[in-house]
Amino acid sequence: MKLVVVVGLPGVGKSTVLSIARNKLVERGYNVKLVNFGDYMLSYLKDTGMIRTRDEIRKLPLAIQLETQRAVARKIRENLEGEKGDRVVGIVDTHAVVKTPTGFWPGLPMNVVLELRPNLIAVIEAKPEEIVARQQRDTSRYRADLSHVELVKEMLLINRYFSIASSVISGAAVMFVSNPEGLSERAAEELVAAIEAI
Amino acid sequence: MKLVVVVGLPGVGKSTVLSIARNKLVERGYNVKLVNFGDYMLSYLKDTGMIRTRDEIRKLPLAIQLETQRAVARKIRENLEGEKGDRVVGIVDTHAVVKTPTGFWPGLPMNVVLELRPNLIAVIEAKPEEIVARQQRDTSRYRADLSHVELVKEMLLINRYFSIASSVISGAAVMFVSNPEGLSERAAEELVAAIEAI
Amino acid sequence: MKLVVVVGLPGVGKSTVLSIARNKLVERGYNVKLVNFGDYMLSYLKDTGMIRTRDEIRKLPLAIQLETQRAVARKIRENLEGEKGDRVVGIVDTHAVVKTPTGFWPGLPMNVVLELRPNLIAVIEAKPEEIVARQQRDTSRYRADLSHVELVKEMLLINRYFSIASSVISGAAVMFVSNPEGLSERAAEELVAAIEAI
Repeated sequence: MKLVVVVGLPGVGKSTVLSIARNKLVERGYNVKLVNFGDYMLSYLKDTGMIRTRDEIRKLPLAIQLETQRAVARKIRENLEGEKGDRVVGIVDTHAVVKTPTGFWPGLPMNVVLELRPNLIAVIEAKPEEIVARQQRDTSRYRADLSHVELVKEMLLINRYFSIASSVISGAAVMFVSNPEGLSERAAEELVAAIEAI
Repeated sequence: MKLVVVVGLPGVGKSTVLSIARNKLVERGYNVKLVNFGDYMLSYLKDTGMIRTRDEIRKLPLAIQLETQRAVARKIRENLEGEKGDRVVGIVDTHAVVKTPTGFWPGLPMNVVLELRPNLIAVIEAKPEEIVARQQRDTSRYRADLSHVELVKEMLLINRYFSIASSVISGAAVMFVSNPEGLSERAAEELVAAIEAI
Repeated sequence: MKLVVVVGLPGVGKSTVLSIARNKLVERGYNVKLVNFGDYMLSYLKDTGMIRTRDEIRKLPLAIQLETQRAVARKIRENLEGEKGDRVVGIVDTHAVVKTPTGFWPGLPMNVVLELRPNLIAVIEAKPEEIVARQQRDTSRYRADLSHVELVKEMLLINRYFSIASSVISGAAVMFVSNPEGLSERAAEELVAAIEAI
């Protein structure tokens, strides 16, 4: 089983790349399991009765948040290892860093990456101008606050620093996949080639 | 109890921001404990008879330095947890990185952050030109060697890389607080708002 | 015993600096042990019958690669600690990051640095233009793919991010040694001075 973590700032076109990459992998005979870490964590916390809405996550004490992240990461890894066959590819859709009013939160802190044990951390990137354009088409409040080219440039760098720290902790390779407007097909192929080769 | 680590290069105005932030937190009813990591480590080493002056710290074998840092971090965390009440804020004044003739030393290496378990690592920053101007007003030998704009720009970046690695290891959020000349009040308010929200 | 890890991108002139530094240390009475991590790992894997050629390393399952890296790092540390005398300097020649078709691999991931326990990670650097010129004189396929100034600039930064993450994990100092064309003697002296002082 190969486990690949895919991260990227809002507006880089991660969902598009992931969707194309999944189809390509399925066509080539892989058993692909695509897991969204945030959705999984939300379900987990709702099921255990700890929260009712996504916004309540950051209100939990830090120790509880970290322990929950760890538990979720372990569960994801276990489920993927439970899959039969030798062509299983687990893709975990998450963030290397999340910008909040209380600073940048690591999306792949040590307690999470050591449980996930990814083979590869793929960082989807795009040109700052294209990211801003995509964010402006998007109406959610969260994306709006990244909407300036200089800030996005800085966030792209910060995203790299976070991704690399997670790579050094876990021993996973890290890959920067450029996703220019209109070339998501090529970006997805690059990702798929790395997944096949790793 | 919330534990916040505050770091920043010499000349960013960290002491001023910390002093204002502490007053604001006290006014809002928090029990604030401000701890200087370096001073604490020095007392600890002097008390145990291992050194007599600060300069002797770097002469100790690496294993002893790392073990002492860890012990000090654990003691700081324990003392803060011993404080009564639910409005305790521990602020640890330290460095993410220290420039020495033998290279850059991590101020928040793994053994330290895993003991401190901070909620937030706040990085106080300022414009390179302002940092140089402040350093030139300062007479200590240590600061003089940072006194060039290009070097300070590079150090600000290096400081970010170190802070982010410490964040990913510990799971703490990391925040970059800009402290422009004459606006320390605003920088302190930004820090206080994050501490209250976290 | 002092253990120093020396890293650097292909083309920075690491071998030249290491060779001069070793001679200087020997002249000053040190017992210098120079170990190439990659060669050591290759021998280890061949001896255990796991592979026959270097290219097969990356084909091994990730868990096996990580476990082997860890075992090799432990063995290197043990051998160095077995050396007699108080003037032993172990120099481990390796990479902070290796560029491959499946992304950037950390050369000093957590499992490796925690076994090596280096006092210092020395990063040999050179001007991007000089690195490209040296790479073009080199005929191997691997180096050719770094042969553009902008890419090399980016790689120098990425190399720093990886080195710093390894420093924060292990508590080792990190040092950036500039090795301009024709001044390897000076770069080696800078490295030797740090090794003596640390």
